[in-house]
Amino acid sequence: MIKATIITIGDEILIGQIVDTNSVSIAKHLNSAGITVAEKVSIGDNAEQIEQTLRRALTTTQVVIITGGLGPTKDDITKYTLAKFFSSDFREDDAVARHVKTMLEARGIVYNELNHSQAVVPEKCTVLFNHHGTAPGMWFEDAERRVTISLPGVPFEMEHLMEDEVMPRLKTHFSLNANIHRTMITAGLPESMLAEKIAAWEEALPAHIKLAYLPAPNVVRLRLSTYDAIDKTAAREEINALFAQLNDIIPQHIVGFEEASMQALVHDLLTQRQQTLSTAESCTGGAIASRFTAMAGASAYFNGGVIAYANEVKIGILGVNAEDIGRYGAVSESVARQMAEGARRATDSDYAIATTGIAGPTGGTKDKPIGTVWMAVATPTHTITALRNCGTDRGQIINRATAYAIEMLYKELKNNTNK
Amino acid sequence: MIKATIITIGDEILIGQIVDTNSVSIAKHLNSAGITVAEKVSIGDNAEQIEQTLRRALTTTQVVIITGGLGPTKDDITKYTLAKFFSSDFREDDAVARHVKTMLEARGIVYNELNHSQAVVPEKCTVLFNHHGTAPGMWFEDAERRVTISLPGVPFEMEHLMEDEVMPRLKTHFSLNANIHRTMITAGLPESMLAEKIAAWEEALPAHIKLAYLPAPNVVRLRLSTYDAIDKTAAREEINALFAQLNDIIPQHIVGFEEASMQALVHDLLTQRQQTLSTAESCTGGAIASRFTAMAGASAYFNGGVIAYANEVKIGILGVNAEDIGRYGAVSESVARQMAEGARRATDSDYAIATTGIAGPTGGTKDKPIGTVWMAVATPTHTITALRNCGTDRGQIINRATAYAIEMLYKELKNNTNK
Repeated sequence: MIKATIITIGDEILIGQIVDTNSVSIAKHLNSAGITVAEKVSIGDNAEQIEQTLRRALTTTQVVIITGGLGPTKDDITKYTLAKFFSSDFREDDAVARHVKTMLEARGIVYNELNHSQAVVPEKCTVLFNHHGTAPGMWFEDAERRVTISLPGVPFEMEHLMEDEVMPRLKTHFSLNANIHRTMITAGLPESMLAEKIAAWEEALPAHIKLAYLPAPNVVRLRLSTYDAIDKTAAREEINALFAQLNDIIPQHIVGFEEASMQALVHDLLTQRQQTLSTAESCTGGAIASRFTAMAGASAYFNGGVIAYANEVKIGILGVNAEDIGRYGAVSESVARQMAEGARRATDSDYAIATTGIAGPTGGTKDKPIGTVWMAVATPTHTITALRNCGTDRGQIINRATAYAIEMLYKELKNNTNK
Repeated sequence: MIKATIITIGDEILIGQIVDTNSVSIAKHLNSAGITVAEKVSIGDNAEQIEQTLRRALTTTQVVIITGGLGPTKDDITKYTLAKFFSSDFREDDAVARHVKTMLEARGIVYNELNHSQAVVPEKCTVLFNHHGTAPGMWFEDAERRVTISLPGVPFEMEHLMEDEVMPRLKTHFSLNANIHRTMITAGLPESMLAEKIAAWEEALPAHIKLAYLPAPNVVRLRLSTYDAIDKTAAREEINALFAQLNDIIPQHIVGFEEASMQALVHDLLTQRQQTLSTAESCTGGAIASRFTAMAGASAYFNGGVIAYANEVKIGILGVNAEDIGRYGAVSESVARQMAEGARRATDSDYAIATTGIAGPTGGTKDKPIGTVWMAVATPTHTITALRNCGTDRGQIINRATAYAIEMLYKELKNNTNK
């Protein structure tokens, strides 16, 4: 098994100033080529720490990919540290120098001493030409054929270098087997109940197949993984067959595979059926609409929605009966139902989702504690409602209510075409 | 100097299935309390690797925070690995058991053997009570007073535990100095030219002040950091004085400093002034409303909004003139203005934000390419509009349009009370 370590360099990661997405992308590339990432490490712009971490990484893994610290300024020390580590002198690379000069001229930037330094590279490395930026990537090999790769930290430059240079070279350099991962999405069973139901199946999994539970609000994903498989097709078929067994154990809880989210499933169904959707959100405050409108093509079915935070908006735009708000409260089945029906009417849509609840941190009562959410789905023929407790934390309540409400619509769409 | 290591556990990180945001949040908490994160490590659900990494972390740092691997299922091994590491037996915690039972009952989940196991904790740890989930946090101390903390991987559970339990305890346990970071935003100078202009200033920085360049398209941020400062106020003043020197060197390139989010600034201003807000969103599809409603207390000023994706919704609910849509197009200054004014009127609010644009990936034309967004802010006295190009990628366009529109409102609120 070929193993890798990913090292990201930069104090901004250690002080929490940025989210590290580079290592996510690198991990995906390596995995899909059958290289197993054993560890990801983030360290500061510190030569000693870089050397120590690299030395340790090369004792346990054959591939080390380092990002960051390749800029032209003094705080960027990766190149000099690597040259020292590999006992290498420097040389000037003409192709890189010409490229840097051309790039900068196109942007009206003066070519100065600092930019010039970008073309100076360690003699012992192979330059990975960076078409999209000024800092080249570097590929070092040692006597044991282990590979150390240094890439710039700018995400799209790194991404292009991984695709165009690093992955093709790694596939040639090593004889690689396959890592296969597949993820099933289940809904309606909390993690503990799901685990109980599939315990015998889990127990019987072959030793080389690894199961992981990935819980999220109202959804638990099950991932089966196999590493370093010689026959990729056979490995994939084995995982598919194991998942197929679950069709007999939890048939009503299997939603789909891989990354398809509930909103993506609704998106596909409504697009196919040429039906339309609207939203009427109180406690979820736009989160339901956002999930749909984030997807390309949403305008084919999403007419729009109303965020009805104030009662006056519930009454004025959605036509909720003011007396009912007084009688049952804004967080009530009656108001949820009227919000959904009102949104359907006001936007002339086939379907509408509504939520009204108490997101906290204040506003809870004994009868209606924080987390209480009434939700409704209005269809061309009828309206369904549900009461859910969505937790105790504001963000959690908004997320769960959003997930539950979209699932409610999905089930309705799946079971009923409502033509 | 008190140093920390953050260890995140889970194969999903190593195969690139999720983006690790937990460690970002933990790093921020530690840093702001004066604890310096020396390293962040992500490893798999593997007992041997967890033990090795923890052993190594405790040789170089006094605080180790571990997230993940605390669920009720078999792939979650952190608790058992830590018990073994600290040679601890297990005990059942009554308070946790009661809490887990109550939580599950409220959600209609059967309390089974797996849930019961959540209440079993290592004898040698102090339980950090998790009000928002079923897996408790754990606090271990060793003979050298080094601390190892284990937290659940669910982001909001981790976040509450960091705030309510971990940080107060760390502040009591250690005598902490301050880490100060301040970031200046510069625009209009590429990194290499900026570095050249401020070279003398950089050269003269005191040894205990660290400078970092954080380049992004059109913007370079400069961060000054000082670690382990005994006098927090003096350290802050020293950094401010150093930044002030740049007023003479690059006056026209200083945009500002990194601060609280724009929506938080708007939230505070509207709450103080007891004024109200509404939204009328086309291309941002609920993202603006979501940013406000995610903040506790938003209901004090946020009346509601309309997501007007279909033209019929722009016309029917917001009162946009249908002929103007025909004449100028839905993505136009006139429509943005009418949307904002319509939302203000329909929700009886003091202010309204509106967006209408082309989020892509289709729908662009030569005159109005993908990324074109018209935005408007309606106030009690007048309406302002702006045209912005927000990029090329759907997610990026929604994010940028959201940020620009909120910034537009913020500037209006800051410059004008509009009473």
